[in-house]
Amino acid sequence: MTLEKQGAGGEGPSPSRDLRRYAALFASRTRVMTSSVMRDLMAITEHPEVISLAGGLPDTASFPGEEMARVMGQVARENSARALQYGPTDGLASTREAIAQVMAWQGASVEPGDVLVTTGGQQAIDLVCKALIDPGDVIVAEGPTYPGAVPTFTAYQADVVQVGMDDDGMKVDELAETLERLEREGRRPKFIYTVPTFQNPAGVTMSLERRRRLVEIANERELIVLEDEPYSLLRYEGTALPTLLELDGGRFVVHAGTFSKMLAPGLRLGWAIAPRPVMEKLVLGAQSTTLCPSPFTQLFVSGYMASGQWPAYIEELRGIYRTRRDAMLAALEAHFPPSATWTRPQGGLFVWATLPDFIDTTDLLALALSANVAFVPGRAAFVNGDGASSMRLNFSASEPETIDEGVRRIGALVAEQVDLFGAITGSFPAVAGEEPGEMAEVVELPRRDQEQRRQG
Amino acid sequence: MTLEKQGAGGEGPSPSRDLRRYAALFASRTRVMTSSVMRDLMAITEHPEVISLAGGLPDTASFPGEEMARVMGQVARENSARALQYGPTDGLASTREAIAQVMAWQGASVEPGDVLVTTGGQQAIDLVCKALIDPGDVIVAEGPTYPGAVPTFTAYQADVVQVGMDDDGMKVDELAETLERLEREGRRPKFIYTVPTFQNPAGVTMSLERRRRLVEIANERELIVLEDEPYSLLRYEGTALPTLLELDGGRFVVHAGTFSKMLAPGLRLGWAIAPRPVMEKLVLGAQSTTLCPSPFTQLFVSGYMASGQWPAYIEELRGIYRTRRDAMLAALEAHFPPSATWTRPQGGLFVWATLPDFIDTTDLLALALSANVAFVPGRAAFVNGDGASSMRLNFSASEPETIDEGVRRIGALVAEQVDLFGAITGSFPAVAGEEPGEMAEVVELPRRDQEQRRQG
Repeated sequence: MTLEKQGAGGEGPSPSRDLRRYAALFASRTRVMTSSVMRDLMAITEHPEVISLAGGLPDTASFPGEEMARVMGQVARENSARALQYGPTDGLASTREAIAQVMAWQGASVEPGDVLVTTGGQQAIDLVCKALIDPGDVIVAEGPTYPGAVPTFTAYQADVVQVGMDDDGMKVDELAETLERLEREGRRPKFIYTVPTFQNPAGVTMSLERRRRLVEIANERELIVLEDEPYSLLRYEGTALPTLLELDGGRFVVHAGTFSKMLAPGLRLGWAIAPRPVMEKLVLGAQSTTLCPSPFTQLFVSGYMASGQWPAYIEELRGIYRTRRDAMLAALEAHFPPSATWTRPQGGLFVWATLPDFIDTTDLLALALSANVAFVPGRAAFVNGDGASSMRLNFSASEPETIDEGVRRIGALVAEQVDLFGAITGSFPAVAGEEPGEMAEVVELPRRDQEQRRQG
Repeated sequence: MTLEKQGAGGEGPSPSRDLRRYAALFASRTRVMTSSVMRDLMAITEHPEVISLAGGLPDTASFPGEEMARVMGQVARENSARALQYGPTDGLASTREAIAQVMAWQGASVEPGDVLVTTGGQQAIDLVCKALIDPGDVIVAEGPTYPGAVPTFTAYQADVVQVGMDDDGMKVDELAETLERLEREGRRPKFIYTVPTFQNPAGVTMSLERRRRLVEIANERELIVLEDEPYSLLRYEGTALPTLLELDGGRFVVHAGTFSKMLAPGLRLGWAIAPRPVMEKLVLGAQSTTLCPSPFTQLFVSGYMASGQWPAYIEELRGIYRTRRDAMLAALEAHFPPSATWTRPQGGLFVWATLPDFIDTTDLLALALSANVAFVPGRAAFVNGDGASSMRLNFSASEPETIDEGVRRIGALVAEQVDLFGAITGSFPAVAGEEPGEMAEVVELPRRDQEQRRQG
């Protein structure tokens, strides 16, 4: 039997009839559900000849295979029946303790009993939406925001309102104005979504002053803040800042964390920390969708935690990623035209680059894929078509020389577009950071001599 | 910092103020979201002195720890970076091939490319609801139905309409009448949910005739049937029947499977097979909730499949569970009063027992927990309060002598209730199977001489 091709009743229906037939059965949310650009790109970029600066993949090859075998060997010897069995919906005690320890590394003091282990950080975002969002409800997010959160918000038919950013993260003054405006319109947001540290995709970090102000606003207005913090231990320079959770004391901040970036996304383990009444709803949501996080992978985490080697591994990742970030910044300097600007992240996985506004990075991506290089076009990080001239570039998944070659290929395509624009209009584009516009402040202008660069 | 107890702003709020405050933020679905009785019972029954006949736990202790270590050692040596990395949303190719093989063991021919790997069978149910259910939509289910599906349906604010069962599974004539009635009321169901083989909780199996008729009805009415098939390889006697998927040819049947019962629930891996237009929506739903199933556990499955030992393990499980089923049936015969009836499953994990209707099993559970024994009260399998005198008894998770002792304890409590009723009313209750009522036909009357039993 080949599905849809033959069946007990004879010839299968035609695809167009199929679509009509099933369409009446679909929930209304499916009309707005969209695919994650990043997930689609992952499929395209599976070919080994493609240099993918698109994904958000950590360098799992740096995790020693023998260590994985050792930890799982121990789990198998001591705990195989438990690893293979169902576990509690909120997670195994040993994993919740490991998470409390990881939160302590980030400076936040959390009781293991206040931790919900989730199936990746993505499920934490999904469960918060399930608990809070009715169709039409407002979610306030950064602009740009994590492209993978957009399909989740959309699946709950939320109305996403984005607030601008600069090098100090979300513009909290603009947030306050936005909340005022929404209040006048009778639309009270359900939560504010932020990635405060090494933001995905912008790479910038919210300043301490803004963190304090954001928490104040949340408390004044009795609004939830969903703090999505996947990267904070991956800091390559500068000083760590307190989490919003810590500043708020667990009143209105729901904290989402994950093992994906500082250990391994393949485990599909993350967590949520929330005020009790919210936590109860998150647990109910987890019960009804996945029953429980995997004890098999949870015991890997707690076993690895017990080995004491994890801090050294994070230190190793920091070294690897710092080198790659530096390679990317150097490559951008070397290969991108002077009219391009980009952020200079102190940690995390991403640089956000902005090109002259006559370049559409969605169109550019098609050219880039022909040149066997990929990035995430900026529009994926906005719900309203903004970000058209920006792109997210990942530096964690490639070796320095690969990063250089990938950026070189993109830079060559951009230079062609710039030259073409110049030839047609007879003008030379202004530097994006000096232009007015949505993303103008999410830049750190490369300190360079344009003249010197043209000679080099 | 202890969450909710202290914070930057001073003393924490009182719990009642908390609830009021957050209540305005919750989505309307949370007003109907309920906890799974089974999940709650799992927490209660964690104490080692409690004999739990409540859960649906497979006997993971029978899986050899050294085999788990061997498979994971091989994954670590050959594939550690891949196991630890993100994977495709629809699953790794090797796992989808393993699933196609498992479907072949069940007599269904499926292309690996038509398989979506999910985070447990529960996610398959959730994703089907996400794709199909708007608030108020009708889902038709068996009565009793899988207690763990009820919270999922409820979370999507579905209106669950249940159709009676007997020893041949869902009464398909009653289904046809129900669909007629719903049509007259202008309520077209989105899907029909069924566990056709060794049903959870009733233990009964849908006859071939009814399977054919159900598929016909689905095709005539262009309705999805969600075939939830976790147990079909766990057959202890009798002949395997074709899946609804195979009978339908993949037109209107969405098939949900899982590794939980024939391998290990701790892996959190299941699957869905669906007509392409439906599958597209399931994939979008999976993207936005969990991104991808765990490559770490997926590679365990495909590694174990490659070892060729799995069929022998399933055979071993069959032997273990057959013995336990027989122990449970014998224990019921020995310890339950003559007025009780129960099903005699040919496979799976559960027996459904029905007591005289003056006994409420929800009340009985409180007494049972005091006697350190647990079961799932029948009401958990209905949305309308039916099933009050029934219970689900699990035989897969306990040794034969433990099963006997657990049933003995429950039987003693039941006997007390029966005696008390007799003393108060002066009457002896009729056998439930002879009484009219919703569940009257889901019984296989023990062939026994009541007189002999009282002497024994």
